[in-house]
Amino acid sequence: MNFLDYIESHREHNLDELKDFLRIPSVSTKSEHKPDIARAAQWVADRLHGAGFSKVDIIPTKIHPLVVAESLEAPGKPTILFYGHYDVQPAEPLKLWTSPAFDPTVRGGNLYGRGTADDKGQVHIHLKALEALQKSEGKLPLNVKVIIEGEEEVGSVNLWDFVTKNKDRLRADALVVSDTSMLARGVPSITYGLRGLNYYQVEITGPSQDLHSGVFGGAVPNPITILAEMIAKLHDKNFHVTVPGFYDDVATLSAKERKALNALPWKESEFRRTVGAPGLSGEKGFTNVERLWCRPTLELNGIWGGYMGEGSKTVIPSKAFAKISTRLVPDQNPAKIAKQVERHIRALLPKTVHCKFGLLSAGKPWVASYTHPIFQKAIHALEKGFGKKAVFIREGGSIPFVTQMHDTFKVPCVLLGFGLPDENAHAPDEHISLENYFGGIKSVASFYSALGQP
Amino acid sequence: MNFLDYIESHREHNLDELKDFLRIPSVSTKSEHKPDIARAAQWVADRLHGAGFSKVDIIPTKIHPLVVAESLEAPGKPTILFYGHYDVQPAEPLKLWTSPAFDPTVRGGNLYGRGTADDKGQVHIHLKALEALQKSEGKLPLNVKVIIEGEEEVGSVNLWDFVTKNKDRLRADALVVSDTSMLARGVPSITYGLRGLNYYQVEITGPSQDLHSGVFGGAVPNPITILAEMIAKLHDKNFHVTVPGFYDDVATLSAKERKALNALPWKESEFRRTVGAPGLSGEKGFTNVERLWCRPTLELNGIWGGYMGEGSKTVIPSKAFAKISTRLVPDQNPAKIAKQVERHIRALLPKTVHCKFGLLSAGKPWVASYTHPIFQKAIHALEKGFGKKAVFIREGGSIPFVTQMHDTFKVPCVLLGFGLPDENAHAPDEHISLENYFGGIKSVASFYSALGQP
Repeated sequence: MNFLDYIESHREHNLDELKDFLRIPSVSTKSEHKPDIARAAQWVADRLHGAGFSKVDIIPTKIHPLVVAESLEAPGKPTILFYGHYDVQPAEPLKLWTSPAFDPTVRGGNLYGRGTADDKGQVHIHLKALEALQKSEGKLPLNVKVIIEGEEEVGSVNLWDFVTKNKDRLRADALVVSDTSMLARGVPSITYGLRGLNYYQVEITGPSQDLHSGVFGGAVPNPITILAEMIAKLHDKNFHVTVPGFYDDVATLSAKERKALNALPWKESEFRRTVGAPGLSGEKGFTNVERLWCRPTLELNGIWGGYMGEGSKTVIPSKAFAKISTRLVPDQNPAKIAKQVERHIRALLPKTVHCKFGLLSAGKPWVASYTHPIFQKAIHALEKGFGKKAVFIREGGSIPFVTQMHDTFKVPCVLLGFGLPDENAHAPDEHISLENYFGGIKSVASFYSALGQP
Repeated sequence: MNFLDYIESHREHNLDELKDFLRIPSVSTKSEHKPDIARAAQWVADRLHGAGFSKVDIIPTKIHPLVVAESLEAPGKPTILFYGHYDVQPAEPLKLWTSPAFDPTVRGGNLYGRGTADDKGQVHIHLKALEALQKSEGKLPLNVKVIIEGEEEVGSVNLWDFVTKNKDRLRADALVVSDTSMLARGVPSITYGLRGLNYYQVEITGPSQDLHSGVFGGAVPNPITILAEMIAKLHDKNFHVTVPGFYDDVATLSAKERKALNALPWKESEFRRTVGAPGLSGEKGFTNVERLWCRPTLELNGIWGGYMGEGSKTVIPSKAFAKISTRLVPDQNPAKIAKQVERHIRALLPKTVHCKFGLLSAGKPWVASYTHPIFQKAIHALEKGFGKKAVFIREGGSIPFVTQMHDTFKVPCVLLGFGLPDENAHAPDEHISLENYFGGIKSVASFYSALGQP
């Protein structure tokens, strides 16, 4: 039986097994789920043994364990490193789920449950692809290293420390990750670009304590008003970011790439429906696909200050706060951008207030030159697994691990995403399309098989 | 013994009695203090009996009772209506008090405790002035009506209903209120103007749900950014409010009044110290005293939206909110201003968002023509009681009851304030200056005595 027939004949079995995996509430943010996290790590380790991995370690960290495994029995063949995570986001608010978050349920061609798309379902695709190759051919056609963490949803706190201390053990010819989405239903996709992310917090202090807005109003600096006036100056009327130098290092898209990206079957009507706002808005001179994937942005992620309760309180607050982030694109440098943003914000503020500026995190953008032969093999494998044309896409989000791995090992990173834009990762009714799940197993097995061939 | 000697000889007694009053934690916002509220109402009623009032009623309302009393035994003499309140703000945070909030303590010439300034101490000044007149002269020299409520700190919920149903009972030649502050220590003051207050809430909705700022950032309307841009347009560079028509009905200050107000011993250095900001700011073309008392303002009292917790969350929120208020001056009309503000805010917003605009409350400004003879009698009485020059001031805050009474009864309202700008009303370490307490009793007795003379 070849591996594709093996996969086809194990549909029910695989789906049932995935449901077992999803029933473990491996929520990494909550300490009461520590035993569930441990169970999920063991579950993954057991499946790796089942897929023929002889060396499987559960490595404790300061928070949640890593599962690290190797199958290096294909001398002369390439080695890939597969990365995924077995932890999930909390399921709250529970009452917004149509079926319980940890009782996976098939409905309308989708499997619903926390972790279906992000990332247990996608991890399971790889486990089952590897198992199919092992069982149908007696051994894996390539060398595979696996690192599956339990801290992705809490910021991969201990992952990078492990990686830097185990570079030789993890070294591979390519990194393979499945934690992204396809462009749309029926459009298998490889993500070859991610935006970087700098995240800032700004604290404006006017008066040294809250003041009565009647007694003091009209003669004192109001930190909310001043914060708002500053924010309003961060974009010009064409929605360009006004930070001096912000666009200096932005690589120009080639005419060819621009044409290819804009020719993708990206549906503006679906995007508008998902967003649900009365209209869209963005930087002048660029299409929405370009704005989302290839242009840097400055977004307000949070704002607060003064009275936020019911009714009225006549206060001029001492402080007002904002959470601001910039998404970065090649070849912007996060450290340089952070300095430019801070300098600009300070320059925009009047001398009547104090400002604390904090850089909470900084992350580089990433783009792959997808002319490397591995990307051609991946595209063909996706087309084989889905029976549909596959495409190269970029994404607006950030996966710091990909960028770090790319910088550290200087190898191609292949992002095979089997989620969908409406999958509700991090939200109630998270789901994975069964077509993507089953097509994913076939695609990944085909990809690994092809990598083992000359 | 004349009434001033009587007052002088009762200093210790009066202060001890005030401490008794202050020990009753008559916190109107908390239902567990209902028995204390009842005790405080009874305490006030007993003192009114002691001051010679024959008719004293404790009138239940839906929340806390009113104390209403009359002494109408001076035929042919004027009748005044004294208003005050016996309820207090909560004392929390308790640990910020130097001495316990409900254990009144003298320190450095001040009496510390919740309610010392707002308003039990000031009510007690009137009770003791009336008692001194009664005891030293055998009867009150004028007709006095008293209404002392227990709901001032919860918005005087039931007061206005009682007033409108008992107009004849409450009718008087003047309203006397002591719930304000003096301009500064050693400067006895009569407040003859208050600003009005409209309070609004604005809710901006962009996307129909929170979105990932990586996946969606750059192509969708961010409600925080749009709210900030709207707020930034509410003032021009001279800090004039840009709402069309906002200043149309603002009465011009006479050159005489402007000169008088700016000649007051208002200390900018003290104001700056209290505010504690790196600088002041306000409407161009006006002094700080004018900005605070005589110019309308638009202030941001609260703002919120998106992620406000620790660290980062990459969200573009669906909604952002602001609490906005306008302080109004004669002859601005609150209803007209509310319409202008709503129209302007809606006009400033792009079509990419929805806006809900709510008017939470509306209140008129008030200014007295202090040429009425009663004001001259009040000023002389203050100078007699304090042995210092007294002044006419305005205030930036709002006392809706004064405006309503003035509109209803069309009589002069005399605001004799014995608080101080740094009295910490509503905050820990609230206090009243003993000089103001004792000087206040003498002043009020002198004022009432003078009103009884031709």
